[in-house]
Amino acid sequence: MKTITSRDNAQYKDLKHLATSSQARKKAGQTLLDGVHLCQAYLELRGLPVQCIVSETALNNPEVADIVGKIEHQRGHTIALPDALYNAVSQVEHGVGVMFQIDTPERAVPDAMTVSAVLLDNVQDPGNVGSILRSAAAAGIKQVYCSGGTAFCWSPKVLRAAMGAHFVLDIFENVDLAPLMAASRIPTLATSGYARTRLYDADLSKPVAWIFGHEGQGVADDLLSLATQTVVIPHLGQVESLNVAACAAVCFFEQVRQNQQ
Amino acid sequence: MKTITSRDNAQYKDLKHLATSSQARKKAGQTLLDGVHLCQAYLELRGLPVQCIVSETALNNPEVADIVGKIEHQRGHTIALPDALYNAVSQVEHGVGVMFQIDTPERAVPDAMTVSAVLLDNVQDPGNVGSILRSAAAAGIKQVYCSGGTAFCWSPKVLRAAMGAHFVLDIFENVDLAPLMAASRIPTLATSGYARTRLYDADLSKPVAWIFGHEGQGVADDLLSLATQTVVIPHLGQVESLNVAACAAVCFFEQVRQNQQ
Repeated sequence: MKTITSRDNAQYKDLKHLATSSQARKKAGQTLLDGVHLCQAYLELRGLPVQCIVSETALNNPEVADIVGKIEHQRGHTIALPDALYNAVSQVEHGVGVMFQIDTPERAVPDAMTVSAVLLDNVQDPGNVGSILRSAAAAGIKQVYCSGGTAFCWSPKVLRAAMGAHFVLDIFENVDLAPLMAASRIPTLATSGYARTRLYDADLSKPVAWIFGHEGQGVADDLLSLATQTVVIPHLGQVESLNVAACAAVCFFEQVRQNQQ
Repeated sequence: MKTITSRDNAQYKDLKHLATSSQARKKAGQTLLDGVHLCQAYLELRGLPVQCIVSETALNNPEVADIVGKIEHQRGHTIALPDALYNAVSQVEHGVGVMFQIDTPERAVPDAMTVSAVLLDNVQDPGNVGSILRSAAAAGIKQVYCSGGTAFCWSPKVLRAAMGAHFVLDIFENVDLAPLMAASRIPTLATSGYARTRLYDADLSKPVAWIFGHEGQGVADDLLSLATQTVVIPHLGQVESLNVAACAAVCFFEQVRQNQQ
């Protein structure tokens, strides 16, 4: 383990830059996972981080000590920081004091979708994107394709909301969704209040690609017209619509229900 | 319509206090609805606000003009503010410039639950509470009971996330949930990863009360032991749980599905 005590240390400055600038994260192709749960999930599902950063106080926390022990055992890198320096880097208030610096995976977009997937068209809110990733992973969906306008999946807010779902999903960002839908070998489904088929009556027994859109405007018209089928989630109340993450959860778990019959 | 141009005006000062202090809102038993959608929904579903506040620029917006027209037509109160004064009160960045000051409804808790309801035990995040209210309203559920530790439903963040659901629901806050569950005349259902019955196999054809808990810890053990039944949402992936608002949406719309068969 290495200890850094100076704010002027070059490695510390790089770390702080990564923590505070979304542009720096994208340029470096790296991000930070903050907190015990995300770090444990990464270790278990993806392996060693580029480096582990801990606060001096957190070294006394048994869960953090366990994480650091595993990393040192596998000859990974750990940096210890005095609490003041750590807190200047962490974006989590009252956090435990452990984070991983990791490479954000870059994957080539497959030629055509063949397994169940989620397409996100301009979904703006990081909490919504994170919740959708979490629900997709829980429902056994493997692939997520995001348009350029969708919130950056590897941002700290999306990572926190997704609770480790990132590490079991293949996430593709800045994807042009129209050609992907046009070339799809599986049905593409969108929800719409105007659709005639109820979600519950759609055949979800084979792989499908779900598309969800912007919180206010929904899925863009050109993409909606490319969907194989539109389905409606029946509403019983006077309220006209669902939050996009709630809508996605309902769709994914109707798919689970049909596949478990 | 009345115009206020001075920051020292007593009415303006009261308004600013209401806008910036959660304590002031609770003490006054009033809150602010910010934005065209919430104001339109309130007018349609609940009627006139205590007063309507508009920015001078917003008076040129046709949707805002329509709202103001309806209020003046029904002899309601409107206050116009110069943009600078309005923006100092509004919590919404780049908003349209219209808000309603309303009384938050106070209701006596019924002796026993007899219609489908949602119980929230220490749900912390305003976005989650708002999304659950929105999903409940869309699924035709009428009552929501919140423990003292749950986010205050009439806060601006919950109101924004719920998109008008507040105006079709009966919301009870600071409720002691244990006696409510004990006295319930309808089954009370909680989700649990350890439950044996799948959500899809539970009988949801009659009214039920759903209980959801804290984002990290779930429903408190004493309340869980009072539930008539626990059900599991089957997970197909390596991710162990759903966001609480996603979980609630899945439950509510499984209930809709069973009632539409």
